Amino acid sequence: MTYKELSEQIFRKKSYLCVGLDTDPHKIPPHLANEKDPVFAFNRAIIDATADLAVAYKPNIAFYEAQGPRGWESLQRTLAYIPADCFTIADAKRGDIGNTSNLYARTFFDPEAAGLNFDSVTVAPYMGRDSVTPFLEYEGKWVILLALTSNLGSADFQRRRVSSESSDEQPLFEIVIKTAQTWANSEQLMFVVGATQADELGRIRELAPDNFLLVPGVGAQGGSLADVSRRGLTAAGGLLVNASRSILYASSGTDFADRARAEAQALQTEMAGYLATI
Amino acid sequence: MTYKELSEQIFRKKSYLCVGLDTDPHKIPPHLANEKDPVFAFNRAIIDATADLAVAYKPNIAFYEAQGPRGWESLQRTLAYIPADCFTIADAKRGDIGNTSNLYARTFFDPEAAGLNFDSVTVAPYMGRDSVTPFLEYEGKWVILLALTSNLGSADFQRRRVSSESSDEQPLFEIVIKTAQTWANSEQLMFVVGATQADELGRIRELAPDNFLLVPGVGAQGGSLADVSRRGLTAAGGLLVNASRSILYASSGTDFADRARAEAQALQTEMAGYLATI
Repeated sequence: MTYKELSEQIFRKKSYLCVGLDTDPHKIPPHLANEKDPVFAFNRAIIDATADLAVAYKPNIAFYEAQGPRGWESLQRTLAYIPADCFTIADAKRGDIGNTSNLYARTFFDPEAAGLNFDSVTVAPYMGRDSVTPFLEYEGKWVILLALTSNLGSADFQRRRVSSESSDEQPLFEIVIKTAQTWANSEQLMFVVGATQADELGRIRELAPDNFLLVPGVGAQGGSLADVSRRGLTAAGGLLVNASRSILYASSGTDFADRARAEAQALQTEMAGYLATI
Repeated sequence: MTYKELSEQIFRKKSYLCVGLDTDPHKIPPHLANEKDPVFAFNRAIIDATADLAVAYKPNIAFYEAQGPRGWESLQRTLAYIPADCFTIADAKRGDIGNTSNLYARTFFDPEAAGLNFDSVTVAPYMGRDSVTPFLEYEGKWVILLALTSNLGSADFQRRRVSSESSDEQPLFEIVIKTAQTWANSEQLMFVVGATQADELGRIRELAPDNFLLVPGVGAQGGSLADVSRRGLTAAGGLLVNASRSILYASSGTDFADRARAEAQALQTEMAGYLATI
């Protein structure tokens, strides 16, 4: 999906909601337990209930890997079921030396390899340029690079003050954002910025005025959609705000899909309001 | 496997060789193509040919993921086949927020989850403490944290000068090594240091006098076993030096296992010499 297509979808749906498919077999409503593939049955119902309200879906790969080969089959079925107009994100936090990153890229981008054809993958920056560029070699595919994450541990290294060529010290996450922009432009590169880091969002938007930002941490992790939107929205939209648990597990009963829709609808309505102001 | 057991194995086998199972279906000898699981058949032959010369095996998870569910089955079979006295490393470079790292830990450490029971997993440090500690909650299991990797991109962020509390600037990888030692001791924590970074190995050994170091980059990537050994060996051994392609693909014919053994034997003989001097 291109930058323009993603932007158009945002204004058509009046939404920049990404639904995180962190599907935990132990949390799925009990009545789905007899389905052949309960994880897929759950995801299908969630997608059916939210596809007109969400612009993106983000399966969290750990949840599928933790089920072994069966989990990868659930992931394949889920990805194939997501409507073509929605942007898809493999939240995998991969990154390795070049020949290995090549294979991770093939895994998530080449349907002939692992049966997956995601639009994008989240990548960890620690190993630098040659760990990231193999993902960029796939035309029309995106890298979503970790910059400033939503968890407490983001303070351990991401906020460390680093010497820069201009002699001013800058936090590591700013160096990551600046450096990565020399590897790819905003047509292929997004950054992960946690919603719990709204204070820094303004500064990050200055550093990356055109890049989409993937913002997890609204909902269960406590980030504010209002703060994120005020600081992050651009004329092209420029945001994908993810909610996972608050939507998926809004109910553990047979009404889970309806309740998921209601949660997504509330977020979309709020987003429509913010989009109307830009 | 405990620190003591790993150390004893090193002196018993006179080896600190780790064989990297970066098994590429397109590179395995053609005569294996008719096997039901060619990747496993290849790995089994490599393991049979090297198990008395190697103390550890390190499947590179990307190579298995890139085959989809079938690849995970090859990985399960391979791991089950590795002799119990050998240390096993899931080279996965994972790391995410706590509840997700929990699932990655379960994937690689809990056989009830994905059918895998590795001794250790490689972890990327960028997301900080709560992305790493879930792996440490498994008693007897290890985190092998990326510190200074073997690739060119290691210069992009790992070598950046960072302010520290002592006011002296230090490269980021040193901060990672110091900080991570407040999370776990050398019974559960190793560091990845590329063999191409031998100049820094002495300094890293000062910072982490007891931790095992996993050293990739000997062989195809050009690192020197002599340099690594001189700077990295300790009284407990303290090193796992990985070779992958130089062993696996020593021959593409029916003699591949014999040629792999000869490569491993050459490394083990050299290692025995270095071990005799400590």
